[in-house]
Amino acid sequence: MAPLSPRVVVKVDLKKKPWQQNQPLHNRWHPEIPPVAEVKAGEFFRVEMIDCMGGVVKDNDSASDIQNADLTNTHYLSGPIKVVDEDGVAAKPGDLLAVEICNLGPLPGDEWGFTGSFDRENGGGFLTDHFPCATKAIWYFEGIYAYSPQIPGVRFPGLTHPGVIGTAPSMELLRIWNERERQLEESGLKSPTLCEVVHQRPLANLPTTKGCLLGNIEGTPEWERIANEAARTIPGRENGGNCDIKNLSRGSKIYLPVFVEGANLSTGDMHFSQGDGEISFCGAIEMSGFLELKCEIIRNGMQEYLTPMGPTPLHVNPIFEIGPVEPRFSEWLVFEGISVDESGRQHYLDATVAYKRAVLNAIDYLFKFGYSKEQVYLLLSCCPCEGRLSGIVDSPNAVATLAIPTAIFDQDIRPKTRKVPVGPRIVRKPDVLKSTYDGKLPITKNPSSSTSY
Amino acid sequence: MAPLSPRVVVKVDLKKKPWQQNQPLHNRWHPEIPPVAEVKAGEFFRVEMIDCMGGVVKDNDSASDIQNADLTNTHYLSGPIKVVDEDGVAAKPGDLLAVEICNLGPLPGDEWGFTGSFDRENGGGFLTDHFPCATKAIWYFEGIYAYSPQIPGVRFPGLTHPGVIGTAPSMELLRIWNERERQLEESGLKSPTLCEVVHQRPLANLPTTKGCLLGNIEGTPEWERIANEAARTIPGRENGGNCDIKNLSRGSKIYLPVFVEGANLSTGDMHFSQGDGEISFCGAIEMSGFLELKCEIIRNGMQEYLTPMGPTPLHVNPIFEIGPVEPRFSEWLVFEGISVDESGRQHYLDATVAYKRAVLNAIDYLFKFGYSKEQVYLLLSCCPCEGRLSGIVDSPNAVATLAIPTAIFDQDIRPKTRKVPVGPRIVRKPDVLKSTYDGKLPITKNPSSSTSY
Amino acid sequence: MAPLSPRVVVKVDLKKKPWQQNQPLHNRWHPEIPPVAEVKAGEFFRVEMIDCMGGVVKDNDSASDIQNADLTNTHYLSGPIKVVDEDGVAAKPGDLLAVEICNLGPLPGDEWGFTGSFDRENGGGFLTDHFPCATKAIWYFEGIYAYSPQIPGVRFPGLTHPGVIGTAPSMELLRIWNERERQLEESGLKSPTLCEVVHQRPLANLPTTKGCLLGNIEGTPEWERIANEAARTIPGRENGGNCDIKNLSRGSKIYLPVFVEGANLSTGDMHFSQGDGEISFCGAIEMSGFLELKCEIIRNGMQEYLTPMGPTPLHVNPIFEIGPVEPRFSEWLVFEGISVDESGRQHYLDATVAYKRAVLNAIDYLFKFGYSKEQVYLLLSCCPCEGRLSGIVDSPNAVATLAIPTAIFDQDIRPKTRKVPVGPRIVRKPDVLKSTYDGKLPITKNPSSSTSY
Amino acid sequence: MAPLSPRVVVKVDLKKKPWQQNQPLHNRWHPEIPPVAEVKAGEFFRVEMIDCMGGVVKDNDSASDIQNADLTNTHYLSGPIKVVDEDGVAAKPGDLLAVEICNLGPLPGDEWGFTGSFDRENGGGFLTDHFPCATKAIWYFEGIYAYSPQIPGVRFPGLTHPGVIGTAPSMELLRIWNERERQLEESGLKSPTLCEVVHQRPLANLPTTKGCLLGNIEGTPEWERIANEAARTIPGRENGGNCDIKNLSRGSKIYLPVFVEGANLSTGDMHFSQGDGEISFCGAIEMSGFLELKCEIIRNGMQEYLTPMGPTPLHVNPIFEIGPVEPRFSEWLVFEGISVDESGRQHYLDATVAYKRAVLNAIDYLFKFGYSKEQVYLLLSCCPCEGRLSGIVDSPNAVATLAIPTAIFDQDIRPKTRKVPVGPRIVRKPDVLKSTYDGKLPITKNPSSSTSY
Repeated sequence: MAPLSPRVVVKVDLKKKPWQQNQPLHNRWHPEIPPVAEVKAGEFFRVEMIDCMGGVVKDNDSASDIQNADLTNTHYLSGPIKVVDEDGVAAKPGDLLAVEICNLGPLPGDEWGFTGSFDRENGGGFLTDHFPCATKAIWYFEGIYAYSPQIPGVRFPGLTHPGVIGTAPSMELLRIWNERERQLEESGLKSPTLCEVVHQRPLANLPTTKGCLLGNIEGTPEWERIANEAARTIPGRENGGNCDIKNLSRGSKIYLPVFVEGANLSTGDMHFSQGDGEISFCGAIEMSGFLELKCEIIRNGMQEYLTPMGPTPLHVNPIFEIGPVEPRFSEWLVFEGISVDESGRQHYLDATVAYKRAVLNAIDYLFKFGYSKEQVYLLLSCCPCEGRLSGIVDSPNAVATLAIPTAIFDQDIRPKTRKVPVGPRIVRKPDVLKSTYDGKLPITKNPSSSTSY
Repeated sequence: MAPLSPRVVVKVDLKKKPWQQNQPLHNRWHPEIPPVAEVKAGEFFRVEMIDCMGGVVKDNDSASDIQNADLTNTHYLSGPIKVVDEDGVAAKPGDLLAVEICNLGPLPGDEWGFTGSFDRENGGGFLTDHFPCATKAIWYFEGIYAYSPQIPGVRFPGLTHPGVIGTAPSMELLRIWNERERQLEESGLKSPTLCEVVHQRPLANLPTTKGCLLGNIEGTPEWERIANEAARTIPGRENGGNCDIKNLSRGSKIYLPVFVEGANLSTGDMHFSQGDGEISFCGAIEMSGFLELKCEIIRNGMQEYLTPMGPTPLHVNPIFEIGPVEPRFSEWLVFEGISVDESGRQHYLDATVAYKRAVLNAIDYLFKFGYSKEQVYLLLSCCPCEGRLSGIVDSPNAVATLAIPTAIFDQDIRPKTRKVPVGPRIVRKPDVLKSTYDGKLPITKNPSSSTSY
Repeated sequence: MAPLSPRVVVKVDLKKKPWQQNQPLHNRWHPEIPPVAEVKAGEFFRVEMIDCMGGVVKDNDSASDIQNADLTNTHYLSGPIKVVDEDGVAAKPGDLLAVEICNLGPLPGDEWGFTGSFDRENGGGFLTDHFPCATKAIWYFEGIYAYSPQIPGVRFPGLTHPGVIGTAPSMELLRIWNERERQLEESGLKSPTLCEVVHQRPLANLPTTKGCLLGNIEGTPEWERIANEAARTIPGRENGGNCDIKNLSRGSKIYLPVFVEGANLSTGDMHFSQGDGEISFCGAIEMSGFLELKCEIIRNGMQEYLTPMGPTPLHVNPIFEIGPVEPRFSEWLVFEGISVDESGRQHYLDATVAYKRAVLNAIDYLFKFGYSKEQVYLLLSCCPCEGRLSGIVDSPNAVATLAIPTAIFDQDIRPKTRKVPVGPRIVRKPDVLKSTYDGKLPITKNPSSSTSY
Repeated sequence: MAPLSPRVVVKVDLKKKPWQQNQPLHNRWHPEIPPVAEVKAGEFFRVEMIDCMGGVVKDNDSASDIQNADLTNTHYLSGPIKVVDEDGVAAKPGDLLAVEICNLGPLPGDEWGFTGSFDRENGGGFLTDHFPCATKAIWYFEGIYAYSPQIPGVRFPGLTHPGVIGTAPSMELLRIWNERERQLEESGLKSPTLCEVVHQRPLANLPTTKGCLLGNIEGTPEWERIANEAARTIPGRENGGNCDIKNLSRGSKIYLPVFVEGANLSTGDMHFSQGDGEISFCGAIEMSGFLELKCEIIRNGMQEYLTPMGPTPLHVNPIFEIGPVEPRFSEWLVFEGISVDESGRQHYLDATVAYKRAVLNAIDYLFKFGYSKEQVYLLLSCCPCEGRLSGIVDSPNAVATLAIPTAIFDQDIRPKTRKVPVGPRIVRKPDVLKSTYDGKLPITKNPSSSTSY
C-alpha cells in the first residue's frame, strides 16, 4: 500500500507565463537561488517543466517567433530541488547525487514540439554560415512517435530526454565559469585555439540582467547582484547543465557532483528527441514535459569516483549510465567527414570541422531523395542520429561520422545498384517555415553544389 | 555446385618481409600503382593482409619495437584490386564501388595483436602530452574474444574491421591532397584554425621516398618520381583510406568513389577491435588478417549519390552502411568532456578538446578501480567504446562523450551507493610494457591528480 | 495545428464498478454487442480500460481476493469500437484491420498491479499441481520499472501490452467456437489428444449467463439469449482476443481479421509486463491502463494476406508486427526442458510438457538464490522472460527453453566457477501472499527436491 | 608469448568416410566409449566435426540422397573429450562442466550446407502430414551470410551453433533413457498423453546395432553389447545432446552435468543457422564445421546449481547462458497459432498443435509473396526465426507464435495498406529439389487453401 503515483514536486501551468508560475522558475545558475522543493533519497517524484523558449514559439505557420527569439531568457528550469537522505540530512558538497530517470514524456494535452534554427545574427547554429535564416518545423506526437507536416516522409520514436539537468554551482565554481568565458569573449578572436570555422557566432554568453529569471530571488534586494553574477544556461559545464546527451532517456542514471548544501537539482529543456550535436541549436524537438525521478546520495562520492581535471577540485564532469531499456536501431547509413573545410582548406585534427563536413555530406545526400536542405538540417538536429569521433589521431585529418537510422524514412534511402527504381528522385513538396535573412554576415557556398543551401 | 570458398585474390606470407611478398604490397596512394589482381562484380573473394607495422612489432616483453617504429613505412596495403562488371568492363571514374564485408578475421596461426602508443617525438598520440612514452600491450584471441596479459580483468569480443580501405586517387586528387597538406605543414603553426591542444605532433606527413613501397612499381624507372608524389596513408581522405571506423565489421557495406579506371581497391591495417578515435594512435588491436568481400559497381554513382563538398568534383567522401548483424552492448558508462582544457582554459566549441577531456575523465575514473593510467589509455584505444559529439552548438562548450560498455570488465565498474563493497579499490599488479621518454617536449600535468599520468 | 492529444474514445472511472461505467464494458465476445464509439482510419485515439478482475483484487496484505475470484466475469473489455475509413465507410467482413500501438501505460494515479495464481479448484494455472494455493504479489511502478514488496531483489522495466485485443466474431464464427469447445469439454477426458499433464484444470469455459456483462445489451430483452451464446474471453481465438503476446508493446502493429461490419474492436486486460506463457494464469502484472492507437483498414485484406487453416474461411489468425523500438535485454540465462514429466515418464514431442519442465527447472534454480518457489513462480509469470520451442522434431523429446534476462536481478544469478562468493546462498525473507489450499486434487511432488513446492 | 592458436584436439578429414577418420567418431551415447582427447580447464581448444549425415548428402541437383538417408547412422560426433582441472584431476560425476563457445564456423574449403525434409516413411518432420516428400535445398556461404539457389530472394547471417553438444551418460542414466523410450514405443499409441497430431512419425528410436559407430570401441569384443545398449542421438536429453538451441552461438556458455569421470564431452551436428523448432527435422543448414572452446569445471556444481526434476538425482537438464555478442534483428513479422488443428478440432492447451498452426499460417502467408510452400517450409526450418510459447494457461487454447525477421527478405513482406504496389504477388520461379512420395500414409489437406501443400 505504497503511494501509487510519484509525488509531484514541481508543477507547471502552461497557460501562465514562465515568470508567473506558482513555483517560480529560473534561467540562470547561481548558488543563492533557494530550493522550491525538497525530496528524500529513494523517493519517487515528478518534476514538470515548460519548454526551453517559455511558450514563445507557437504551433503556427510562421517562423517569425523563432526569428525574434530572445536568447537571454531561454531554458526556464524547474527547481532547485533540495535532496536529503533517509535521515533528513542534506546532500553536502563533495557528495555525488545519483539521479535515475524512471519515466518522462510530454505533458498531457501538450503533445507537440518544434525544431528551429535561429537567425544568423541572433544565435545561429552549427551550419549557420550555410543556413542563415530562421527556420521552424512543428512536430506532432502519436504516442512515442513524432511526425512533422513540414518534413513529410519521416516518422520516428523519440529518445526523450531532458536537455538540461544539473546541480547548483558554488560561488567558487561560478567565478571560474565567468572568468574563463569572459576571457574567451575578450581575446577569443586573437586566440590560436579558436575553431575558426564556427567562429561567426557569439563566442560566449556572459551574465546579464536582461531576461534574467531567478526563482525565489525575484523581488528581493539581492536580485541585481545575483543577476549580474549568475551563469547563463546555454553551455554544459561542470555541474551538468545543458549537456544535451540524447540517450539520457528512460532507465538512465546521472551522477552529478554536489557543490552546495542540498545539491539543488534543476532541470528543464525537455527534448522529445535529438540528434547528436543538436546541430541547428534550437535543434531538438523542444517541448514541455515531465520527469519521474529517484535520487540517491553517494556520500563523499566526488572524491571516491571523480578526479578533477584542471586547476581546482571543482573541475569535474558528471558521469552517466545508460541501461538496457534504450530502444536501438539496427540499420544505419553513415556519412563521413574529414577536417578539410568547404573551401578545400586543410585543418589539423579538428573534429568540429570534420563533423561539419559529415553533416553537410548527409544533407546533400538526402536532398537527392526529395527533401529541401533546410528540411534535412532540421531533421538531423532532432532525429536519433549518432555523431561519432571515429578517428582523432591520423594527422592531419580528424574523421567524424554521422549515422542515420534507415528505419525513420518511408523510403529506402540506401544507395542501390539495381536498375529499377532509378535512384533517389522522389519529389516532396512542403518545406520548413522560413524567415528571410536580413543580416550582413557572409554566407558559405559549396562551389560544387548545383543548389544553394 | 558453386565454388564453395571465396577466391583468394591476395595472399600474404607472414614469414616474409613486407617487400618480399609474392604479390607486392604498397604503403602509398598513387594512381599509377598497377593492380595485382582483378575481380568481377558479384564475385566472392578473399584478401589477406599483414599487420600495419609489417611484422616489426613482436609478441615479446619489451616496448622498444614500438619506440623505434618507423612511421614512414606503416600501413602495408594489399592490392590494388581492379574491379570489372559482369561483362568485364572496368569500373570508371564517376562510378561508386559498393564493397560488402561478408567476413573477416585474423589469419589462422597468427591469432594475436598489439596496441601501442608511440614515443612523443616519434608520432605520439591523442594524449601524448600526458603519456609521452612508447607503450605496448599484447592481446591474445580466443575466438571472438581478446585478452591481454598486460591489462588483466578485461576481455571483450572484437568488432573486427579493416582500418584502411580505399580506392586509388586520380593524379588530380593526389595533387589536391599534397597541396593542402603541404600548406598546413608550412603555415599551420601560424594558423588561427589550429587545434592547439594537440599541436605538438607532426602537422602532416608529406610524401617521402623514405620507407616507400610501391607494389609493382618497385624496380622500375618511375619509382623515384612516383615515390615523391605518392600520398602517405596515415589520414583518411576522399578515397576512404585510413578512416578507422570501428563498426565496419561483418555485414557492413562501403560505397567508395571511383577515381581511376578499375577503381583499384586497396585495404590493410586490420583491427581486431578499436575504440572510437583510436586515441593512442597505434591504438586498435593491430593484427594481420583477412577480408572476404563482394563488390558491386554503381555506374555513375558519384553523381547519383554524392555531392562534392569543396572546390572540385573530387571533394567527396565515402558512405557506409551498417547492417543488423553487428553485436551491440546494452549497458554503458558514459564520461563527458567539455571544451575546457586541463589548465582550465575555455576553448570555443572545440570537439577535439572536449573529447580529450572526456577521455582523461574516463582514464582517471578507471584508475580508481585498480588499473594504471597507461593501461586505461591503451584499453580505451582498442575496446569497443563509443565517442560521441553530443553537443556542438552551445557556445562556448562543445560536449563530447565517451561511452564504455560495462560488460567488458570482470568487476562492476558503476558507481555504487551501497555501503559494501566500499568503492573502487581492487588492486591489479601488472602494467603495460613501457619505454622511457627521452624527449624534450613538455609534459601536461593535471594539477588536481594525486598521481601523475 | 493538429489536435495535440489523442481523442479519448473510451474513458473509465476507477471509482465505479465495472457495470457502472458511463460507456458500458463487456466481458464476452458476440457480434450483437453494439459499438460504444467510432473512429476514423488514421485518427489517433485513446482507449482506457479497467484491470482484468474489475477492481476486485486490492493492494493489501491478503490473497483472499484472488482465492475467491470469480472467473466468469473476468476481462472487462473496452469497446466495441467501430472503425470507418476516411470517407466514413465502415470496415467490412473480409477486410484486415491494422491497429498500431503508439503508446500505452497505466492510468495516472493507479500505478500499481498484481500477479496471482488461482486456487487449484478455481481455475488453477500452468503449475497448479505443484502450487495449488491462491497466491498474490503486488507490484508498484516507478515509471517504466516495477518492483514488489513480496518479491524483493528484482526490478524490471515493463514490456507493457494489452492482454486482450480483438475484433467481434460473426455469428458463424461464434458457433464454431462454441461447438468445438463444447465438444472438448464433453469428450476431452477420453480423447487421445489431451495434454494430460495439465488436464486437471477446466477443459474449457463455455458460455454462461453467470457474471456476464454485455455492454449496451444490458437491460434489453436480448440479454438472456446473447448471454447464452456469447463466448468467454479466456482463450485467444481467430479474432485475436486473449493472445497474451508479451511483445505487443509500443510500436507494434496488429493485423486483425474483420468479421462484422465496422470491425468492432475491443481491448482490455492490460499487462504492465508478462513472461511468455503467463504461467500462473493471473500471471502478468495486471493493471488498469490506456492504449493510444491508430487504425488502418486494408480492404479485402483477409483474402490478400491470410489463408484460412481449417474447414471454413473463418479459420484464420491475426498477424503481428514488432518494430525497432522494443527494449531488448542482451544477457540471458536459459533453462531447458524436455518432454519427460516429473514422474520420469516419456511424452511424445509434447511442447507443453517440455515447457513445464523448463519452468520447473528455473524455479528450483532460482530457489537456491534465496527466493521461495512461489516467488519464482509468480516472477516467471510476469517478468520479461522468453519461452521458446527450440526443438519440435527430435522424437520423442520436444525441447523447450525458458530464457531469463539476468539484468532484472540485483545479484549475479549465473553459475560461478570462482571460489568466492561461495555460490547461491543469499537469504531473502519476505514471501508472496498465500491462501491455504483446501481442495482435494492431488499435488505433484518432485521426489528429488528436498523442499516441497 | 602464449600459443597463438587453439590446440586442435579433434581433426576431421572430409575426404574420408565417417568411420575412417583418424580419431574415430561415434553416433551413440554410452559411458564406455573411451575419450579420444583430453583438455585442461582454461585451455583454448578446437574441435572439428563432419556434417550430421556424414557426407552422404551432396551439393547436387537431386533430393534422392535425402530420400534414401539412413537415420540409424546420423549425428557423427567428435569426442569424447576428457576434461581435467589445472592440476590434472578429472571432472567427476556431480560436477558441472562450463563450456564457452569462443568461436565456430564452417570448415575452410567446405563453405556450404543443406536443409532437407525426410520422406514421410523415413523419419518425416513436423509438417510431414502436409509435406510427405523428401526435399532438399543447398545453401552457399558468403562469410556470415547464406543464400540458396533453390530459395531465391532471401539471404541471412547465420546464428551458427552446434546442434549436438553433451556429456556422456552414466550406465544408470542410460538405462533410464532406454526404459522410458521403450515404454513409449510400446504403449504410446494407447496413451492419453500422446500428441496425436504429430504421431504418424516414429515414436522413439531405440538402440540398434544397425548403423552404429562407437569410436574406439569399434573392433573390440564389447561392440555388440554396447551397440545394443547405446542411446541414439536424435532426442535431446539430460546430458544435453541434440538440444538444437539456435542461439548457442559465439559467446554462449553451456553448463553441462557430469555423469562420468572426465565428463566425456562430445559434439557434432553443426548448424550454420536454424529456426526455433528445426521444423523440417533435417531442418537446420547442416554442415561440417569447427568449434573453438574453453572449459571450466564447477566442482560439485550439480548439487550447487541443479535440482533433479524426477525420480532420481540424474533427472536434470543443462543450463545455458547467452551473452551480449549475439546478433539480433529488430523488426519481426509474427504469426500466431492456437491449439485448434487443421480439421477445426479443439485441443487442450497443446503447444505443439498451436505451433504447428502458427507455422502453417506463416507458410501460407509467404506463399502469397511468390514462394512455393516447400520453399517456405525449408526456410522456416533454417532461418533465424523465433518460436514462442506465448500463452499456455488460457484454456482451452495454447497460443504459440512464430516471429520472422523481416530483414532476411529482399522485398518488404509486411502487409500494406497503401494501394501501390498491389500486394504480395512477386513470382519466383525456382523451387526446392523434390522426390516423389511413394508411401501410403494419409496426407493432411487444408480444405480452405486453393493450393495443395
